Amino acid sequence: MVKKPTSPSVSKSLGGEFGLIRELLAPLAQNASALGLRDDAAVFTPPSGYDLVISTDALVAGVHFPSPAEASLVANRALACNISDLAAKGATPAGCTLSLGLSPDWEAAYLRDLMTAFGRGLNAWGLELWGGDTVRTPTSFLSLTVYGLVPHGKMVQRAGAQMGDDVYVTGVLGDGWLGLQQELGEQKHLEDVRKAYSDPQPPLALGQKLVDIATSSLDISDGLMADLDHLCLASGVCMDIQLSDIPYSGAGQAYLHAGGALERLLGGGDDLQIGFTAPPEKAAALTALAQATQTQLTKIGRVTCKAGAGDGPTTRAVLRSQSGAEIALETRGYRHF
Amino acid sequence: MVKKPTSPSVSKSLGGEFGLIRELLAPLAQNASALGLRDDAAVFTPPSGYDLVISTDALVAGVHFPSPAEASLVANRALACNISDLAAKGATPAGCTLSLGLSPDWEAAYLRDLMTAFGRGLNAWGLELWGGDTVRTPTSFLSLTVYGLVPHGKMVQRAGAQMGDDVYVTGVLGDGWLGLQQELGEQKHLEDVRKAYSDPQPPLALGQKLVDIATSSLDISDGLMADLDHLCLASGVCMDIQLSDIPYSGAGQAYLHAGGALERLLGGGDDLQIGFTAPPEKAAALTALAQATQTQLTKIGRVTCKAGAGDGPTTRAVLRSQSGAEIALETRGYRHF
Repeated sequence: MVKKPTSPSVSKSLGGEFGLIRELLAPLAQNASALGLRDDAAVFTPPSGYDLVISTDALVAGVHFPSPAEASLVANRALACNISDLAAKGATPAGCTLSLGLSPDWEAAYLRDLMTAFGRGLNAWGLELWGGDTVRTPTSFLSLTVYGLVPHGKMVQRAGAQMGDDVYVTGVLGDGWLGLQQELGEQKHLEDVRKAYSDPQPPLALGQKLVDIATSSLDISDGLMADLDHLCLASGVCMDIQLSDIPYSGAGQAYLHAGGALERLLGGGDDLQIGFTAPPEKAAALTALAQATQTQLTKIGRVTCKAGAGDGPTTRAVLRSQSGAEIALETRGYRHF
Repeated sequence: MVKKPTSPSVSKSLGGEFGLIRELLAPLAQNASALGLRDDAAVFTPPSGYDLVISTDALVAGVHFPSPAEASLVANRALACNISDLAAKGATPAGCTLSLGLSPDWEAAYLRDLMTAFGRGLNAWGLELWGGDTVRTPTSFLSLTVYGLVPHGKMVQRAGAQMGDDVYVTGVLGDGWLGLQQELGEQKHLEDVRKAYSDPQPPLALGQKLVDIATSSLDISDGLMADLDHLCLASGVCMDIQLSDIPYSGAGQAYLHAGGALERLLGGGDDLQIGFTAPPEKAAALTALAQATQTQLTKIGRVTCKAGAGDGPTTRAVLRSQSGAEIALETRGYRHF
């Protein structure tokens, strides 16, 4: 290691890395795999007949969440961005490992709040904390890796959408971005949707049932059209999305009615809903599933071509008005770089 | 997401996150679990009868490696710090997920070198790249999570050292720290041991065989005495370590002979060797194993008490001179905070 310690809060108030682990992390890791967070590694015995689904999302202070931000917002979002991936894959959460980069401005009280909220989230999502690493850094980050289980061979991939499938999304779109704007002090005249950003609720209960229903699926995290483009590319299909069918909250509708930019609402990202395809004959099963899991579910389009079929359209999602005209969007989603 | 992109190299030269993934990462991920790095998650089918061993180490630029540093040094160390954990646990490498935080000063050419070296390391260690995340950040980091396999129930834990066990270490100690000093322009009069820092070789081949031999094990990454203290604490034992038996390189010996501080050499960290305990009757098997795997192996001490036996000594490793006197060290290892 190159540099000497510089974080007074962790080194003094919490008694260093080992104090931090003992006081704040080990209480969240009362499970067999974690070995009390006192070993070099975690150990997990995978149940036979299941595949392990692994997803990682890293969140950097000031890039992926405002800095400073409420500790609960940071913990909630770190968990939700990963849970939405498991939900989209049809996986049941099992465990996670957390790599925590701590900058000197994250004081002991803040870390306590962060870990309290993180523990609450672990319980809510049914995730065990198995291990991780804590390091000093000039800019705080959380890199969370989550592990889920699906019956062998059943993970719902991005590849798999079929010609004629219906396209669905869960929840409402745009509130992730709108909620963030409200956190930042903008759009405060609209109904308060900050919780959609600060405490997102990916549709895990519905997602877990998709293994027998969906042909393809992904989480909507960058922006609806950008994400559906990825699904089209992976599946080798194109799809039509009906603008008038896209579900918004009251706040989202009001934003648009007041002349707000569709591209910002749809392409701002952070919704953590899921988008998937399923054959039309699954419609009744999906309606029942949406009711049983109390999840808003909306059919927004249809897979309209198979790539390589010869007649031209590229593998992407096309947004259409009620007249059928294509609506071109300059920004289809958040660009990470 | 809060901030707009600021990394010109990734956004322009590499065509953004997806260009980066396509050009530099996907070629390293030609395996079934990674799904071409084009899905939300990786999927791994664990072989039956095995446990999954999971370890994470995060490295931050300027904290865990010099910044700037050769790209190969960064890739080698990120892999080796995690491989040493698998080696200590007796695990066989299977796959990894990489969470990569990229600051604007890491330009496209540097990223190419980094990923070339990372790919070379994956091959050398027998690891598949299954997935991960790439994000922008003001300070670059690599958070690598590695997955290994051990026969069910066989992972070598830190807990397990028994009264009367011998204590062993692999390789030589101190060259990680000394090599770093040389990278930083110090200690250049000594034999060049920079490779011990820039391209560490944890004893994986030997480690994998420890499942049937060692009673406890861990990697030596913070400093010998600090790490052995952790092993004592987890196992509930104390141990005596014979100073004169600790193995050094020629450079390490020369450093000490010239009056260099033992505490710096032993407590500087970064060695990525392993320390373990085994019953005396395994001595011959270990000698044979060391030969077969061409690994330097040295017996440096013995487990001398079981905690709670009533006679006082705390659960820790005690460094002793040839006369048996305790050698007190102010610094026993690197402190992360």
